Amino acid sequence: MKDPSPFEYLRNAAGPLWTDFTGHQFVRGLSDGTLPILAFRRYLTQDYLFLIQFARAYALAGFKAQCLADLRAASDGCAAILGELPLHVSFCAGWGLDEPGMAAEPEALETVAYTRFVLDCGAAGDLLDLYAALAPCVLGYAEIGAQLAARPAPGNPYAPWVATYAGPEYQAAAGTTRNTLARLWAERGGGARAAALQATFNTAVRLETAFWSMGWRGAGEACG
Amino acid sequence: MKDPSPFEYLRNAAGPLWTDFTGHQFVRGLSDGTLPILAFRRYLTQDYLFLIQFARAYALAGFKAQCLADLRAASDGCAAILGELPLHVSFCAGWGLDEPGMAAEPEALETVAYTRFVLDCGAAGDLLDLYAALAPCVLGYAEIGAQLAARPAPGNPYAPWVATYAGPEYQAAAGTTRNTLARLWAERGGGARAAALQATFNTAVRLETAFWSMGWRGAGEACG
Amino acid sequence: MKDPSPFEYLRNAAGPLWTDFTGHQFVRGLSDGTLPILAFRRYLTQDYLFLIQFARAYALAGFKAQCLADLRAASDGCAAILGELPLHVSFCAGWGLDEPGMAAEPEALETVAYTRFVLDCGAAGDLLDLYAALAPCVLGYAEIGAQLAARPAPGNPYAPWVATYAGPEYQAAAGTTRNTLARLWAERGGGARAAALQATFNTAVRLETAFWSMGWRGAGEACG
Amino acid sequence: MKDPSPFEYLRNAAGPLWTDFTGHQFVRGLSDGTLPILAFRRYLTQDYLFLIQFARAYALAGFKAQCLADLRAASDGCAAILGELPLHVSFCAGWGLDEPGMAAEPEALETVAYTRFVLDCGAAGDLLDLYAALAPCVLGYAEIGAQLAARPAPGNPYAPWVATYAGPEYQAAAGTTRNTLARLWAERGGGARAAALQATFNTAVRLETAFWSMGWRGAGEACG
Repeated sequence: MKDPSPFEYLRNAAGPLWTDFTGHQFVRGLSDGTLPILAFRRYLTQDYLFLIQFARAYALAGFKAQCLADLRAASDGCAAILGELPLHVSFCAGWGLDEPGMAAEPEALETVAYTRFVLDCGAAGDLLDLYAALAPCVLGYAEIGAQLAARPAPGNPYAPWVATYAGPEYQAAAGTTRNTLARLWAERGGGARAAALQATFNTAVRLETAFWSMGWRGAGEACG
Repeated sequence: MKDPSPFEYLRNAAGPLWTDFTGHQFVRGLSDGTLPILAFRRYLTQDYLFLIQFARAYALAGFKAQCLADLRAASDGCAAILGELPLHVSFCAGWGLDEPGMAAEPEALETVAYTRFVLDCGAAGDLLDLYAALAPCVLGYAEIGAQLAARPAPGNPYAPWVATYAGPEYQAAAGTTRNTLARLWAERGGGARAAALQATFNTAVRLETAFWSMGWRGAGEACG
Repeated sequence: MKDPSPFEYLRNAAGPLWTDFTGHQFVRGLSDGTLPILAFRRYLTQDYLFLIQFARAYALAGFKAQCLADLRAASDGCAAILGELPLHVSFCAGWGLDEPGMAAEPEALETVAYTRFVLDCGAAGDLLDLYAALAPCVLGYAEIGAQLAARPAPGNPYAPWVATYAGPEYQAAAGTTRNTLARLWAERGGGARAAALQATFNTAVRLETAFWSMGWRGAGEACG
Repeated sequence: MKDPSPFEYLRNAAGPLWTDFTGHQFVRGLSDGTLPILAFRRYLTQDYLFLIQFARAYALAGFKAQCLADLRAASDGCAAILGELPLHVSFCAGWGLDEPGMAAEPEALETVAYTRFVLDCGAAGDLLDLYAALAPCVLGYAEIGAQLAARPAPGNPYAPWVATYAGPEYQAAAGTTRNTLARLWAERGGGARAAALQATFNTAVRLETAFWSMGWRGAGEACG
């Protein structure tokens, strides 16, 4: 039997924290189309603010890169988010949200906590610490997208969202992150650092769950 | 009439956000002694975790210093927090909390959001951005301490907490931060940057309020 | 008469430091074709190592961005350097240098000093500090390229190098940096910070001059 | 036979680079008292500027700390440099150098290269990368101090300099850095990262040698 990849190792060791995230009632609502539209709109708005900070996290990865391959991967990751932002914005427009409105919205407590946690893991640690903090979002969405696409609900209004994360472009980008994590794990002593990397990964997973819950409530504590 | 100092300017412009923070029901409970003990214990534990990150923020200020005076002020700020941590720990012991227990406690969402927001303001911006994010905590506690000490409630079990922040040592440290903020404001173009600095300050004030609310609920969403 | 732009202000105030850089004997040798080939090869190799660190500096600018426009400009800047690296490598191949050989070469003292100085200005300061440190290279090369293209020497073996920096693509990229510097100057209190920004700019100019001198000597002190 | 500590491993693997540093003609001149006074004054002035940046490096270590022990060690390291700066200044006064004069002196190319390289290792990497870059200076001076104190030259004017680095206070501080490096090596996968850490260590050793050479020349290329 093949050894698990570093991502599989971290995900499996996260146990119920991982399934709390990937099986959250928000996700079930996306899957069967029962998610209240206010919850989805709340989520989309905060996700817009989230993506800007996430692009900064990939830029930080570029700064921290110690070889050209890492620098290119990070630069591509940052450019991919910025390149897809107009698509995200036009998707949001279909749900009645415009970009100036989203940009003016205060960040929810959950958005601040998650994004600044990831950025601080990167600033305080090395590139491997940063990828351990990025992985739950990038690879969790790939897993959720694939799972939801495998059991489509007829007439699901959220099918276009599912299609984005299940699609080949997103899945390929997630694969790149998975491979970069594995390479950094090998190069930068992941085995000896597994406990600390797991703690980082687990916190990021909990913050993903808190982000879904914020969306589910349809409103959250504004702090931006 | 004297012009307001940069701190007074920011505090006044924060308006009701500032009074939501300094007049929070948690503060009123500390003032008249009616704060539930579970809320205080929850607060103390998260404050212990908060202080460790806040010491990192002063260390970051040292890294960002561009003159010896700024470097010394930051180094002193970091050393002061680390030096007072044993006092904080012995104070917590009086409320039935021990250090290993507090260190093992997961950080609340509010703790993650606040501390990593401050650290990211510092990493992304300059020393003035960092001080704008630090000021609400450092100077807000000085204001709360002074206000509560001015109207003592007989037999208030929280009197020792009030005495710490009303005391000359804390007030002097807060004065140093106020002066450093004023000097950096002058040196680094605070006037031209007032809107952005106000936004940073306001977010930090909201995160202070969220921190009190987390304590008040006596429990919070763990994410560490 | 129009006010000078922030870049013009800084360049003019740098005085002879600026002309030491833009009129260096290395530049005169590029202009009339008399530059010894060993000096050019030494320069090209170190410039390859320089560009990798400069891409990291633009990635850092992305991390430090506080609005989407700054984030896009930085991400484009980083991607542009990485995108042009293959061109640079094929240009170097024409001078008998291959990429593995350049990548294996130790960084000269001058390369370490210049690149890490720029990166540290960015990490310690804000985005305006970073752009003040980036400007001499980006805009100085645009000025040198334009000047040398205006007085072509027949049969100059360095004409393709001149054409690159005089060309519309590079000139446009330099214009973007000039505009970003001007905008950040306005937004982040450049006027009140002029002395400190000038000191940063001047040091970067001196480090450019030291870089030419390192190339001119055809060899330098390896320290990487 | 006992395994070498991480520091011994790195120092031994640096081979002749290490002996170029610790046996530099500047060091031999300090040992037998023949060092020209102009070289020593040049060195002292740049060392003053170096120490300010080195204090920033310890502050950065505090920011990057992921446990209270690391935070305290870094804060103590920063405070120790700042605390000893007045002693350094009064020592310099004995050689005819005053603090405002040293502070106004431009940083030599070698000073910029070394200090910003160390700071960038820390910002780009993790705490272990930073300590690998700090170790040659901190521990090399301890080794040089001990060696020179073991063979005192009668009437050596540099005996007080030797006594500082041979003394129990400096040796104890160096021991702390050695132990922190060993602990971080174990915790953060030093074994798997040995090649990259060695490259960092070697570059720092070469930059130490370049720093002695800058002093020896009694003058250097100003770039600050």
